[in-house]
Amino acid sequence: MDFSLELIKEITMPSPTKIVLLVIDGLGGLPNPGTGMTELEAANTPNLDKLAAKGICGLIDPVSPGITPGSAPGHLALFGYNPISFNIGRGVLEAIGIDFDLQPGDVAARGNFCTVDEIGLVTDRRAGRISTQKCTELCQLLDRQVIENIKIFVHPVREYRFIVVFRGDDLVPDISDSDPQQLGVAPKSITALSPEAGKLASVANQFIAQAKTTLAEHFPTNMVLLRGFSKRPQFPTMNGIYKLKPAAIASYPMYRGLAKLIGMEILETGTTIENEFTTLKQNYTNHDFFFLHIKGTDSAGEDGDFDRKVAVIEQVDNVLAELISMEPDVVVITGDHSTPALLKGHSWHPLPILLYSKWCRPDRVREFSEAACILGGLGRFPATQIMPLAMANALKLNKFGA
Amino acid sequence: MDFSLELIKEITMPSPTKIVLLVIDGLGGLPNPGTGMTELEAANTPNLDKLAAKGICGLIDPVSPGITPGSAPGHLALFGYNPISFNIGRGVLEAIGIDFDLQPGDVAARGNFCTVDEIGLVTDRRAGRISTQKCTELCQLLDRQVIENIKIFVHPVREYRFIVVFRGDDLVPDISDSDPQQLGVAPKSITALSPEAGKLASVANQFIAQAKTTLAEHFPTNMVLLRGFSKRPQFPTMNGIYKLKPAAIASYPMYRGLAKLIGMEILETGTTIENEFTTLKQNYTNHDFFFLHIKGTDSAGEDGDFDRKVAVIEQVDNVLAELISMEPDVVVITGDHSTPALLKGHSWHPLPILLYSKWCRPDRVREFSEAACILGGLGRFPATQIMPLAMANALKLNKFGA
Repeated sequence: MDFSLELIKEITMPSPTKIVLLVIDGLGGLPNPGTGMTELEAANTPNLDKLAAKGICGLIDPVSPGITPGSAPGHLALFGYNPISFNIGRGVLEAIGIDFDLQPGDVAARGNFCTVDEIGLVTDRRAGRISTQKCTELCQLLDRQVIENIKIFVHPVREYRFIVVFRGDDLVPDISDSDPQQLGVAPKSITALSPEAGKLASVANQFIAQAKTTLAEHFPTNMVLLRGFSKRPQFPTMNGIYKLKPAAIASYPMYRGLAKLIGMEILETGTTIENEFTTLKQNYTNHDFFFLHIKGTDSAGEDGDFDRKVAVIEQVDNVLAELISMEPDVVVITGDHSTPALLKGHSWHPLPILLYSKWCRPDRVREFSEAACILGGLGRFPATQIMPLAMANALKLNKFGA
Repeated sequence: MDFSLELIKEITMPSPTKIVLLVIDGLGGLPNPGTGMTELEAANTPNLDKLAAKGICGLIDPVSPGITPGSAPGHLALFGYNPISFNIGRGVLEAIGIDFDLQPGDVAARGNFCTVDEIGLVTDRRAGRISTQKCTELCQLLDRQVIENIKIFVHPVREYRFIVVFRGDDLVPDISDSDPQQLGVAPKSITALSPEAGKLASVANQFIAQAKTTLAEHFPTNMVLLRGFSKRPQFPTMNGIYKLKPAAIASYPMYRGLAKLIGMEILETGTTIENEFTTLKQNYTNHDFFFLHIKGTDSAGEDGDFDRKVAVIEQVDNVLAELISMEPDVVVITGDHSTPALLKGHSWHPLPILLYSKWCRPDRVREFSEAACILGGLGRFPATQIMPLAMANALKLNKFGA
């Protein structure tokens, strides 16, 4: 039974109560074979445990059991947007990730520098994983062209990855990829998938042809592959749905970009966890919903660094007292997905969630950990239901039906 | 994945087994800050605990996590009807609530007596919350008119609330409200939202104009506001879906009305819990499904009276032995939503459910309480799944697929 955003919108009401959603990216883990404890279980977290004891716990599935979410679906679910129906194109996601200021009519594509042989067949889709420095130099060669009155921006992302943004009138992103996603074949010619997309297909093919010429002498980076042509989607805003005045505090551009897509105000902050909590404190009176994003846990997990992930969790626990001292009406602490150090990447494992409010009906969970949360009063549930729960605990939802 | 009523219908089969669904309205609660125990946890309930030990327990969400259900959605879910798709108009619900005998073609609207100033702007949507006695007198002034061959009934509900029922040929309820739902503006003129609804819109506007004249000298109740024009919905019956011969035992008209909407036979009963159980005993051989509704818990919760809610729960526990002595094949004990005394109203909290049958595969829960049910074998699940579970335990469902 899906209680849609449309239905939620009908029963939300503004109130002075405040909600803080603390997202510890990649929070969930797997047990270290030596100790049998996950990163969260190994960490010394007196403040999280105290809050777990006062609050109510559970496990969330960001998308669906067994499904490993990317950062975008993981976060959209946390904000109550069904990540299966609210889709962000690959090009747009990459652009957001480097803080590129996409305009409403812009079309963005994800690009790879790649290697082709003398007859034009792809031999390496990543051109030997060149350095970001090299990528930046190559992007400068291709940046700021104009083809058929369309301005083209080429910006580096990381290693062999870059973005291309097409800016001009009447661009329809309904075109095929040039990236064949396999070796031993030529890059595909881009085709329009609907009649209105003909112009963009033509411009994109011309851009690729020129890039090939420009890069001819730059083996192994002698070609480009483009995919995921897309425009910035028009999502309903959090204010429109929840009648909140939401703010985002995140040190990484990707998360600021996602927050911006659903209408959150982006608060300037520094690079450390302490910076982020200070930003929260400074802006606390101006908003009634805060999304605070901690990146370090996910990065450590991706690097397979179990101990560093433990350390970041302990660092969050340390500054938690500061959050508690502000006395938000509702505190939700969870992640957007699991990133077990043992797997060195995102995973499908459900992850712990802790909700505290005056009205939360506490359970018997006394520590914040994967194993303890299995027995929590929230049970195991889809992450899209977190926002309705948080809103209810903040007394911001009217009754449904009479 | 929702197993729809259509699918359920295909696999139901009649059998002599009997199901009793005992609905303790507003059963779920919140812990008393002094003791840390909810109403149900504070109550002395040896019989419920014994049944919990023999049976299987869990927690249900009537609509969806975080959503506070009204009485209608809460009950429809218990009967297996998705409360989001099975919608009952506001006017019909109010009419049901006062036992008004709605005919198939009737259109009902919810009315407020309100106050307007000398230029006709609404200054109080509830006319100072007049007494029910006063409301009854005013309704008599407006009752039993005929406009354009449409008979109009005006019946009091409570305080400033009343219903208007329009009876005649070809009435289509697709018209707008006159209630502006805000102060400082005039009541809206009613408009037809489809061409066929023109007649009703015209009659409703004439009724309001006459009411204004009649009430002119009755300040502060000098105007009416109407909303929620609706016809009695045509829902599939429980007999049609489940092949049951269902009966309802409820001392409040609203719940009898809801039961009637889905084809239950309404059994005459008294006002006490003991009366209701006696009615069950007297009619036990004539039906194979009983919905027995206890109102006192919800009323006490709404009044913020923790101790009275505890007392009503203990009273139910007391008469439970009588129910057990009839040896129903399946007993389900739950509520339609939580009504914590601390919140003085319905709430979003999931609520305990207990199912006992010979075939229920018992869990390790030994007491019927919110905290214990978290660890029950039924887990946390949508209330719409109760009926399939009860039917299965009564061996009234065939295998799905080969």
